[in-house]
Amino acid sequence: MTVNYESEKLLLRLWLLLHRVSDLLKTGEDRVLGEYNLTTEQFSVLVTIKYLGEPARPTVIARWLARSPNSVSMIVDRMVKAGLVRRVRDRSDRRVVNVFITSKGESALKPATQAAWKFIQEFPSPLPHESRHTLVNLLETVKHQALEYINPGVDIEAIMKNEAECHANLLEQLIRYISPSTSEAKGQGKRKVKTI
Amino acid sequence: MTVNYESEKLLLRLWLLLHRVSDLLKTGEDRVLGEYNLTTEQFSVLVTIKYLGEPARPTVIARWLARSPNSVSMIVDRMVKAGLVRRVRDRSDRRVVNVFITSKGESALKPATQAAWKFIQEFPSPLPHESRHTLVNLLETVKHQALEYINPGVDIEAIMKNEAECHANLLEQLIRYISPSTSEAKGQGKRKVKTI
Repeated sequence: MTVNYESEKLLLRLWLLLHRVSDLLKTGEDRVLGEYNLTTEQFSVLVTIKYLGEPARPTVIARWLARSPNSVSMIVDRMVKAGLVRRVRDRSDRRVVNVFITSKGESALKPATQAAWKFIQEFPSPLPHESRHTLVNLLETVKHQALEYINPGVDIEAIMKNEAECHANLLEQLIRYISPSTSEAKGQGKRKVKTI
Repeated sequence: MTVNYESEKLLLRLWLLLHRVSDLLKTGEDRVLGEYNLTTEQFSVLVTIKYLGEPARPTVIARWLARSPNSVSMIVDRMVKAGLVRRVRDRSDRRVVNVFITSKGESALKPATQAAWKFIQEFPSPLPHESRHTLVNLLETVKHQALEYINPGVDIEAIMKNEAECHANLLEQLIRYISPSTSEAKGQGKRKVKTI
């Protein structure tokens, strides 16, 4: 029996590919970040704290990373032990815990961010700008549909808009942070900066 | 300072989207499979054993799922405890362990597969066939590049060809398995079948 399951085959390939590509990116990232003794999770937490502004609350980090507060709390525990971040109780509200990046965390973050950015530039390198744009638009549609499935009745447009704004903000800060010509001039708090 | 980082913004969006879409799919899958008391990992192992043929060796399952043998071994441990699979030593070579699906595993697998397949059909539903095709092709290019980065010097074409064959085979068996008109007629081993 030979049946032409063209559309089913395409669906399965799409589903497998979305998982496979994300897994491959994770493998690549683990390799890149491992050079700086960071796991991908730890790096994500450091980036989130850095770019969304210190001090950061674990619940806010969790929301931004789309993870459960519990899992972020466990990652932060390990990061405290590794000396990458520290937890400090808020002076005005003792129930609130703030997370800060330590100088050890800062020293790992900058070269790791540069290396990660190089990897992010590398993996879609065979695709021309126009194809990248198409890919982004198609993935946005899939994301929208998946969000609707997972959050029935929720205003998906508001979620998408909010994420887009966060990402634009992240990008601007990222470029400033890793660009040799502007990052030092901007000053990164605990870092010794040479003003120009 | 306002700089137009158009291509950088696109790169970052692409990278974030690839992760985000895969995470959303995982959340959806967890929800769908949770209804059948299966984790996504357990389901992947059952599917792999089922479609690549019983008995399956843990190292083969690991290779097919692109995971480490250790992580698959831990998943199988938990699945043995949950009564979903059993480990049996090979009669001809005592060093080899084979994994079989139990009747409890079989009973969970079929409805879970049907529900998962419904989800796989749902998330790209707003995209017409042509767009799905474009998305698949673009993802294949990204996958190819990521594979080259992770495995420098390895024959990527051979990996891609092998995966494509595995997937085609998986699809054919999947359709037979979940299609009400053919699955019973094919017979599924331990299942009581009504021939037509």
